[in-house]
Amino acid sequence: MKKVVLAYSGGLDTTFCALYLSKDLGYEVHAVLINTGGFSKDELLDTEKRANSLGIASFTILDVTSIYYNEVIKYLVFGNVLKNQTYPLSVSAERILQAKTLAEHAKNIGAKCIAHGSTGAGNDQVRFDMIFQTIIPDIEIITPIRDLKLSREAEIEYLKTHGVHMNFEKAAYSINKGIWGTSVGGKETLTSSQSLPEEAWPTPVSKTEKEEITLGYEHGELKSVNGEAFKNPVDAILKVNEIVAPFGIGRDIHVGDTIIGIKGRVGFEAAAPLLIIKAHQLLEKHTLTKWQIYWKNQISEFYGNHLHEGHYLDPVMRNLEAFLADSQKFVSGTVTACLLPYRFQLIGIASKHDLMASKFGSYGEMNKGYTADDVKGFTIILGNQTAIFHQVNQPES
Amino acid sequence: MKKVVLAYSGGLDTTFCALYLSKDLGYEVHAVLINTGGFSKDELLDTEKRANSLGIASFTILDVTSIYYNEVIKYLVFGNVLKNQTYPLSVSAERILQAKTLAEHAKNIGAKCIAHGSTGAGNDQVRFDMIFQTIIPDIEIITPIRDLKLSREAEIEYLKTHGVHMNFEKAAYSINKGIWGTSVGGKETLTSSQSLPEEAWPTPVSKTEKEEITLGYEHGELKSVNGEAFKNPVDAILKVNEIVAPFGIGRDIHVGDTIIGIKGRVGFEAAAPLLIIKAHQLLEKHTLTKWQIYWKNQISEFYGNHLHEGHYLDPVMRNLEAFLADSQKFVSGTVTACLLPYRFQLIGIASKHDLMASKFGSYGEMNKGYTADDVKGFTIILGNQTAIFHQVNQPES
Amino acid sequence: MKKVVLAYSGGLDTTFCALYLSKDLGYEVHAVLINTGGFSKDELLDTEKRANSLGIASFTILDVTSIYYNEVIKYLVFGNVLKNQTYPLSVSAERILQAKTLAEHAKNIGAKCIAHGSTGAGNDQVRFDMIFQTIIPDIEIITPIRDLKLSREAEIEYLKTHGVHMNFEKAAYSINKGIWGTSVGGKETLTSSQSLPEEAWPTPVSKTEKEEITLGYEHGELKSVNGEAFKNPVDAILKVNEIVAPFGIGRDIHVGDTIIGIKGRVGFEAAAPLLIIKAHQLLEKHTLTKWQIYWKNQISEFYGNHLHEGHYLDPVMRNLEAFLADSQKFVSGTVTACLLPYRFQLIGIASKHDLMASKFGSYGEMNKGYTADDVKGFTIILGNQTAIFHQVNQPES
Amino acid sequence: MKKVVLAYSGGLDTTFCALYLSKDLGYEVHAVLINTGGFSKDELLDTEKRANSLGIASFTILDVTSIYYNEVIKYLVFGNVLKNQTYPLSVSAERILQAKTLAEHAKNIGAKCIAHGSTGAGNDQVRFDMIFQTIIPDIEIITPIRDLKLSREAEIEYLKTHGVHMNFEKAAYSINKGIWGTSVGGKETLTSSQSLPEEAWPTPVSKTEKEEITLGYEHGELKSVNGEAFKNPVDAILKVNEIVAPFGIGRDIHVGDTIIGIKGRVGFEAAAPLLIIKAHQLLEKHTLTKWQIYWKNQISEFYGNHLHEGHYLDPVMRNLEAFLADSQKFVSGTVTACLLPYRFQLIGIASKHDLMASKFGSYGEMNKGYTADDVKGFTIILGNQTAIFHQVNQPES
Repeated sequence: MKKVVLAYSGGLDTTFCALYLSKDLGYEVHAVLINTGGFSKDELLDTEKRANSLGIASFTILDVTSIYYNEVIKYLVFGNVLKNQTYPLSVSAERILQAKTLAEHAKNIGAKCIAHGSTGAGNDQVRFDMIFQTIIPDIEIITPIRDLKLSREAEIEYLKTHGVHMNFEKAAYSINKGIWGTSVGGKETLTSSQSLPEEAWPTPVSKTEKEEITLGYEHGELKSVNGEAFKNPVDAILKVNEIVAPFGIGRDIHVGDTIIGIKGRVGFEAAAPLLIIKAHQLLEKHTLTKWQIYWKNQISEFYGNHLHEGHYLDPVMRNLEAFLADSQKFVSGTVTACLLPYRFQLIGIASKHDLMASKFGSYGEMNKGYTADDVKGFTIILGNQTAIFHQVNQPES
Repeated sequence: MKKVVLAYSGGLDTTFCALYLSKDLGYEVHAVLINTGGFSKDELLDTEKRANSLGIASFTILDVTSIYYNEVIKYLVFGNVLKNQTYPLSVSAERILQAKTLAEHAKNIGAKCIAHGSTGAGNDQVRFDMIFQTIIPDIEIITPIRDLKLSREAEIEYLKTHGVHMNFEKAAYSINKGIWGTSVGGKETLTSSQSLPEEAWPTPVSKTEKEEITLGYEHGELKSVNGEAFKNPVDAILKVNEIVAPFGIGRDIHVGDTIIGIKGRVGFEAAAPLLIIKAHQLLEKHTLTKWQIYWKNQISEFYGNHLHEGHYLDPVMRNLEAFLADSQKFVSGTVTACLLPYRFQLIGIASKHDLMASKFGSYGEMNKGYTADDVKGFTIILGNQTAIFHQVNQPES
Repeated sequence: MKKVVLAYSGGLDTTFCALYLSKDLGYEVHAVLINTGGFSKDELLDTEKRANSLGIASFTILDVTSIYYNEVIKYLVFGNVLKNQTYPLSVSAERILQAKTLAEHAKNIGAKCIAHGSTGAGNDQVRFDMIFQTIIPDIEIITPIRDLKLSREAEIEYLKTHGVHMNFEKAAYSINKGIWGTSVGGKETLTSSQSLPEEAWPTPVSKTEKEEITLGYEHGELKSVNGEAFKNPVDAILKVNEIVAPFGIGRDIHVGDTIIGIKGRVGFEAAAPLLIIKAHQLLEKHTLTKWQIYWKNQISEFYGNHLHEGHYLDPVMRNLEAFLADSQKFVSGTVTACLLPYRFQLIGIASKHDLMASKFGSYGEMNKGYTADDVKGFTIILGNQTAIFHQVNQPES
Repeated sequence: MKKVVLAYSGGLDTTFCALYLSKDLGYEVHAVLINTGGFSKDELLDTEKRANSLGIASFTILDVTSIYYNEVIKYLVFGNVLKNQTYPLSVSAERILQAKTLAEHAKNIGAKCIAHGSTGAGNDQVRFDMIFQTIIPDIEIITPIRDLKLSREAEIEYLKTHGVHMNFEKAAYSINKGIWGTSVGGKETLTSSQSLPEEAWPTPVSKTEKEEITLGYEHGELKSVNGEAFKNPVDAILKVNEIVAPFGIGRDIHVGDTIIGIKGRVGFEAAAPLLIIKAHQLLEKHTLTKWQIYWKNQISEFYGNHLHEGHYLDPVMRNLEAFLADSQKFVSGTVTACLLPYRFQLIGIASKHDLMASKFGSYGEMNKGYTADDVKGFTIILGNQTAIFHQVNQPES
């Protein structure tokens, strides 16, 4: 029997795939659930139980949240990556790690096929296939939903026929949850003009009283929350989310270019990512030089786009990460923010690497390091080329 | 008597300069107030009255708000320029136009000297001097405050001695107001860790009820507000500000690099600029291609920094503006936002240039233009180089 | 009968296509030869004669050399575009214009199909198809060579069977000629380590005596050669080539990334393009400011790559061209070069826009515009931030 | 007596400074000659002898050639840095290391002053002062030539008066020699239109017979020449220069922007740097992916400019170096070139990391990894957004 590794999430599509691949196509199906921080223990138990009822050969849960942080999220923080100034790449970043983990798992167990439940209409198929093909060049990729062009109803019919019991009701809003944010799609996001209603958002707003939070960074990584230290930044992120999400912070709608060339629109809730990135960026404004900030922006724009489009394994990504990591040498200190319903406000930072340290002079007050005459000389030389240009090219009179 | 053109704002420093230059130094002082949208009629009348009591030769008000829009603000909107992702360059943009106008005025009236009230500690001296030197290469620049290193007290003493009556009380917060935003400096902004108190902000929050607003853009320029058309975008900006500012929207603190190399921190209130830029940017997400957005971001980052540092007359700025203007060809349509106390939320857009138009397929649904096999082929070729790279350079086993 | 527009070059592949489409598939074949400067009159006559013997409905020659210059080459000169610092995009630039012309021609004559002779292994198929699909969204593209996977021998057999007489001998080196250079492929270019032999190069070296040449540019466009004025830069380019090519100048091998992800290597001879670009670039070093040169380089790198990959119709290309065109405002003057066998040496320039004009001071001599103290002040302020950075972050002792 | 460290080269200016500082100003002068590969043993002996006759407290030779390679040249090779596509930064790179070494030396011996012989008209004063001020914030910088505005004649008069004997004749061409190239200034380089005569170039052309050379790179560093291995790339560079320089290769004139805003022009001879960079770049074309090459170019342009302008200690330079170093992981292999009088021609490369390896298909031949249909699908999706753009925005008829 031919071994196939199936990317299994427990939803309708991958449940169909599990049954179809083992029952109809006769594969030895090894279902793998890659947890990147989006599943609770109860969900995992339920999913496991159902998986084991589908006639598959094995079911494995791989918790890769820490790897996900170290190989992807860390650099998204270093780069303050918000696609189109908005979206922390909640889903795209996760897909990369899932695909990579699946491919390595297939290699380890000697499978020659990988199956996933993507349709032919989205970004995920490209991310999955591209990474599989790179890591296992001879892999056979099986995508029943994409190839059979099955409707939701046909899938349900098939599962019912085979005695599978699960919640077949279609949610009004499709949700994808991970540690770096939850995406929310619904009928409004298919338009260009409508926002999502309150009930679409996964976390209800339960906090209304103003609250302060202090995030501690070491070399760009989140290492403490309100004074409590965390060895693993993953735990710090979870802590921040626990505090911040009930404010309804980090909700927005992302509009952007998909890999396949059309524009897509999706809601997302990413309380911790938004606060962590914005606080990190403020700390950088105090600790990096002008050109460090400039180049971080130029590079991160591309880094985020390239990751989003599935090019994580292009070696240029490692080179850019080397730049980003090196830039974090002095990005250490604390950032304080004020949390309010639906918004937060950054208050300020404290860092021994703060370049605004008053001993070098405050802006607007005369600095001990230079004189007014120095600035006059500076200005003359700084403007020299432009002045020459205008003298050479002055309009003829 | 030697003619000097004095950049006159009516504040303590320039009042001192007017008197000192005419009385003590014997210049023929031509005071010029450049209005970039920050003065009310009453303020202008008051200022004029006092100016004429200082022994100067002439007092002129030049309202350059429309020129300011056409030569500077327009491109800041096209480029969605927010320095360090925050600050709309409220003060720096204004200084450029003021300096340029003063230099041209000095040329017109045949003055060989220009005076301004800058100290030796800020950005403005660089912006002023650099632009003066470029436009009038042989100009003599006179800066009494910078050169005499006068304290506030000494200036007041001098003015009182000469019988000048004005409000000498120091405001707790220093304010600079223009059509593209108001800056707010105070003791908190001299620290890295404190935010400004409610009373520091110029516009009190008087609106608390949710309100919708619709902005209409033509080729990237704001041309209507809530359906009302405006020929001059300046009037549209004023209208937006009138509606939005009472919500306390657009308040923030900017931390950034000054021209002279130290870090500076300043509060600002810029309700209209923030909403206009963010709404414009959303419209662009729907109407521009991926690489248009990418290049606009790469270029605008530099454009904003270069402007901020006073390099407006570097011809590269005209070249970048040519790019920005050309990119706006199809950036037309309306953007709707929901206004709430201290924040706004973009709802969506309507544009006949919307690339998300559903007739070309919606994201997540199969598109009529291509098949699942097309995407498979696409993915194989798209990942070809990275796949080859990993095969060539696979770790030796 | 169904109308098809066939991109016809007169070579083996398109001759096969013409016959096969009309005889076997029964199309009404409208063969079009797009001349971008690579065909002599005799070649055109020969080609026309043979074309008319293939049973096609019509044969049309479209000379688009001037359009090619105005829509493509001009910007390659403005941007000093040499892919990978080497290759003037001789073939890729030409394909763009050919595809665009064909698509417009098909539209004009109401054809619903376009055919071309590309194989499935190269860049040209992507450039052609992408541009066709953009300009005529519903076009049917027919590519017999690619689809039938025909060998050279099979094509010859087919043509002989149908009584077609032409030179069927395979040239040792395949040549593609146009006004912006000639590409040369052979067995050596399929390796990474071999250079092309002398006989592979299209133009034999017949000049060995040193010669001077002077190129005159107006706003970045070549408008005179050795003092002779040309209204149409196309004629100036032809003139330069006539003078320079017999020196064996402009020969090189390009190694680069193809659109489909593999590396390709090709020889090329492009005497005029190389000299015109390098001379233009020298003129810019004298007439543009530092940041104009910087941004031209950043942008042109992308512009050349994007064009090479067939994305000419992406609107970002028009925006970048607006930048490039605007940058040429003062790029006027003459450049003198010394021509020698296999190489040239740029001697110098003369331009009234030369920013090196000695009246503003020569490098290495004290400038009238500033003093040694000005430079000292400049240096203190210029280094201020880095100095603060090192004081804040000095290694602990 | 106050200790001063003097940057001493043995030329007229620094000889004057040594005497003037010790005799007239009464300093305890510690002269330091920083050798970056430009001095022969004989020259060093001569210089030492004369130095010791000038009444100074000590004379020290610091050979920093290997440090220079490791801290600067290495990255110039990684980045293929040629300023304005021409100049390997022969002088500017060297000044950086000299300034850094001097500052560290002053720190070590507890000197509170540093002196150098720069005039007020060049780039070097800025590079020296900026690096001194950064490394030793309280340093006093003494520049007698700049401050006294001494003419050459006055310096000679002073030295003769004090009994100093040296060659006072002014060379027709001023030379600055280091391991990364020799600059040549003369009356021609002060014009925009003249080239240097044969006699101006330091190395006469003595080889006229064609010769092949093979350079071996490991992770981007030159490690072998014609099969001979070198542990220290410095020795490999010297070897290459010995072979290549007698061909007259690497001569050119650089025109570019000085730090102080005027345009400068200077001849240079840099045989080894030119060949080493161009060969390295060819190797990269075979071993790096498309986006690695793109980003290396974007970054290196800035890196070279920023270094040239003396900003070596800006921490962004370390971040960019991290990127550059990481990009060299697979840049290993050999490059063969053909040397001819005044020029060289790159023949090809051999590398086990060559992405053009034929087992993945050659350009122009069908690749085993994909089919014609894959390319068709690729093209449809690749062009999707531009096609949608043109459909949405088609000209109205």
